[in-house]
Amino acid sequence: MNKNMEKVCLVIGAGAGIGGTVAKKFASDGYYAYLARRTDEEGLNRLIKEIEDAGGKASGSLLNVIEESSIEDLVNKIESEIGPIDTVIYNIGAQIGDRALADTSYKAFEMGWRMATFGLFRLAQVLTPKMKERQSGNIIVTSATSAVRGNGGQHSHAAAMGGRRMLCQSLNAEFSKDGIHVAHVIIDGAVDAPDTLGKMLGPELFEQFKEKKGENGMIIPEEVAETYLFIAKQKKSTWTHEIDIRAFSDQAWWNH
Amino acid sequence: MNKNMEKVCLVIGAGAGIGGTVAKKFASDGYYAYLARRTDEEGLNRLIKEIEDAGGKASGSLLNVIEESSIEDLVNKIESEIGPIDTVIYNIGAQIGDRALADTSYKAFEMGWRMATFGLFRLAQVLTPKMKERQSGNIIVTSATSAVRGNGGQHSHAAAMGGRRMLCQSLNAEFSKDGIHVAHVIIDGAVDAPDTLGKMLGPELFEQFKEKKGENGMIIPEEVAETYLFIAKQKKSTWTHEIDIRAFSDQAWWNH
Amino acid sequence: MNKNMEKVCLVIGAGAGIGGTVAKKFASDGYYAYLARRTDEEGLNRLIKEIEDAGGKASGSLLNVIEESSIEDLVNKIESEIGPIDTVIYNIGAQIGDRALADTSYKAFEMGWRMATFGLFRLAQVLTPKMKERQSGNIIVTSATSAVRGNGGQHSHAAAMGGRRMLCQSLNAEFSKDGIHVAHVIIDGAVDAPDTLGKMLGPELFEQFKEKKGENGMIIPEEVAETYLFIAKQKKSTWTHEIDIRAFSDQAWWNH
Amino acid sequence: MNKNMEKVCLVIGAGAGIGGTVAKKFASDGYYAYLARRTDEEGLNRLIKEIEDAGGKASGSLLNVIEESSIEDLVNKIESEIGPIDTVIYNIGAQIGDRALADTSYKAFEMGWRMATFGLFRLAQVLTPKMKERQSGNIIVTSATSAVRGNGGQHSHAAAMGGRRMLCQSLNAEFSKDGIHVAHVIIDGAVDAPDTLGKMLGPELFEQFKEKKGENGMIIPEEVAETYLFIAKQKKSTWTHEIDIRAFSDQAWWNH
Repeated sequence: MNKNMEKVCLVIGAGAGIGGTVAKKFASDGYYAYLARRTDEEGLNRLIKEIEDAGGKASGSLLNVIEESSIEDLVNKIESEIGPIDTVIYNIGAQIGDRALADTSYKAFEMGWRMATFGLFRLAQVLTPKMKERQSGNIIVTSATSAVRGNGGQHSHAAAMGGRRMLCQSLNAEFSKDGIHVAHVIIDGAVDAPDTLGKMLGPELFEQFKEKKGENGMIIPEEVAETYLFIAKQKKSTWTHEIDIRAFSDQAWWNH
Repeated sequence: MNKNMEKVCLVIGAGAGIGGTVAKKFASDGYYAYLARRTDEEGLNRLIKEIEDAGGKASGSLLNVIEESSIEDLVNKIESEIGPIDTVIYNIGAQIGDRALADTSYKAFEMGWRMATFGLFRLAQVLTPKMKERQSGNIIVTSATSAVRGNGGQHSHAAAMGGRRMLCQSLNAEFSKDGIHVAHVIIDGAVDAPDTLGKMLGPELFEQFKEKKGENGMIIPEEVAETYLFIAKQKKSTWTHEIDIRAFSDQAWWNH
Repeated sequence: MNKNMEKVCLVIGAGAGIGGTVAKKFASDGYYAYLARRTDEEGLNRLIKEIEDAGGKASGSLLNVIEESSIEDLVNKIESEIGPIDTVIYNIGAQIGDRALADTSYKAFEMGWRMATFGLFRLAQVLTPKMKERQSGNIIVTSATSAVRGNGGQHSHAAAMGGRRMLCQSLNAEFSKDGIHVAHVIIDGAVDAPDTLGKMLGPELFEQFKEKKGENGMIIPEEVAETYLFIAKQKKSTWTHEIDIRAFSDQAWWNH
Repeated sequence: MNKNMEKVCLVIGAGAGIGGTVAKKFASDGYYAYLARRTDEEGLNRLIKEIEDAGGKASGSLLNVIEESSIEDLVNKIESEIGPIDTVIYNIGAQIGDRALADTSYKAFEMGWRMATFGLFRLAQVLTPKMKERQSGNIIVTSATSAVRGNGGQHSHAAAMGGRRMLCQSLNAEFSKDGIHVAHVIIDGAVDAPDTLGKMLGPELFEQFKEKKGENGMIIPEEVAETYLFIAKQKKSTWTHEIDIRAFSDQAWWNH
């Protein structure tokens, strides 16, 4: 690695919840954080400034993952201009709230797949050859309960996340021997994330929901970030492919 | 039901393996079999004639499931011209053989999804309102090992089938209370099917493979058809959502 | 097979619910049904008489599966005096109702294991050599939701059934190639069974529960029996190892 | 907590592999390590001395988990004489190597259950009331592939570990809300552990096996210990119940 090159952690889906927090965590650990998100340039710049103010290195850009070549161009640009991507966090969800089948449009169903499944496939296509050449790299995927069981109203989400989970397993089967660590993290509960759940519920309902959940009753992005860094630092003799996460006060998805 | 209307079993993917055999089985049980397949009109007509020669009722047409409105139009046409679809067999696979990620084109990955996942979603969109109104109906989906675990070289197949399995679970969660029975059948082994495995391997390799597997060493379409009919006839108090199938001489996917 | 010998279906746990009904079903299909149950000789004799009145052949005896040599002796006695056991139904549950850990005695936990897990192991020890010699036989195990997920209050039941499920998989892995078909049937809902759920709830609560569940809202033993016979008749090219069952009005265990 | 009391990490099954290494790791993090193992007092004392030489606090004793009251008495003694058990590592396996059913004695099958399943149940019985009163504590269970799928020759092991996994889920369902963190760690590969795999294979075969696996090809106890410490330190808003571990060069259990 050229001495001017940085060891990069690329976060795709770097909002104010898990994504941005993971970027901060990896930056505080010495990574160069690259933050990509679909909208809100102001929020993006705020996150970058927070990282820099804390002594870290970061930059970022807006990215629409469903646009042709968007992910591919970004990866190539980072690799040539900033440094090798040691770790990528694929933090693109596809939750659109509970919708009956009749209310789930063809477009919504396809968007779910384009964001959650096809986007990861495209990322793997462009990044795995580079990681394979280096015989090292982490692909960490934020996942959800819907990846392991379909549920009422979750047609689009479950199909997208379930396909993605199997893709993670096929990627792991092909690339672990090449030193590429693929991890699938099942976030099995509500995350205290203003940019996702907060936007879906609106500020008032979000506050009520948080109150109902009680202290420590929602998954904290900072703690998820600890998990991701832990996974990225696992030695290759001892890799985790799948891990679940929820608050102590929640029941696991298999209970009810 | 108008007395001139038939009780229809629609088979989407009615080749010479599972699909066509299931059509025959349901026809022999009194269903009107409608056979839809992508190519080979001659083969289609042969199957229809076999059913009619055996005293059954059947018709069919070529169908490209990935074409816009193709599934939707067919379902509407059958329902208005032939009779209510009591049972639909979604027998569209997406196996393209083992391919490294680098050899799996974007197009192949998308085709897998369009055929295996999106096609079922579209079918459910057009058919569930009709079945719900009748408070009855069976949606039986031929599935594969890749629906439950990704494997090396199975990127496209696993993502498509894994997404489809979760879709089956979300459909079941929404519609079972409305009398719609969704069943996901995991075909966990090689099927003695000249139109799928036979074509993939070529006639010579297919014969060698069959010989190696030995007597009863491959899943027999006739027996799969028995399973499908059994599922279609389960009373609503006692429904199966998932069932696996393999030959006695094969190890289950979880063994090795 | 000696011409005076019968083709036997042995039901271990032949109460008035699934067990007794399966015995009747197999008897009506030509099997000699042998019914074993822990208590209620009168109820046992009534079932046998019902089978005989319907033109079937049956006998039975009381059996305490946790007693040393009880299962082993019975299997040997049937095989030498009546005929080869073609199919055995292991229908011994271990549900003791929801109990907090503090209320689950060591004895209850051990009994759960002795009945649900160790009993099946002992049965397999004595029966598989005979079935292997004949290169044929079915071992069908009635299982429950607790075999696939632990739940609050289910400490004893889940540990026993979860262990049993893994035992079924290891038996299948060793013996399927020898023509022995092991099937694990997940009964994922309430069964309309006066001898089990009925006794647990008491007659009044049981009636209220049935009313709440509505028509077809409980699993019907007759339909489970159809499933067991279907599994026993599957050809060896097309075997099912696991199948789930629930009423249309219930949600699957993975939903909530 | 009395100021003379220590924050204890109790390791049940503290051999020279995962168990002893986890004890060292927790001791280096400030825990008082208590090491319990079945045999080899010399090895036990060596581990304790290593911890003390590194500036940590530790003690230990021989413990036969299948002996009546052994676990219960130890927990009570530690709690009254040393300090509250913050974290317990249940590191008792039940692997006896691949054995055909005919070679798996009743005694071996029962021992598997007594060690792997019943021992954890007894531990939970004595420890959860204390942890519940403190509204905090970690129960970390070393598990194996056999907990998630039975395999040829694994009758005893799979039944014991599969039952234990369901027990972990039922414990988690009852006690997570009380601040007790139950984690089930699936060790899905060979561990570089002289006291377990090494003893099973013998020194010569063990060396050959290690050579075949190559550099980083076996799970390293030190890295497993990092995982356990990470889990013990997770905040209650963000708990992991299940995590898998294997070397990069191994295929996951679901692949083959």
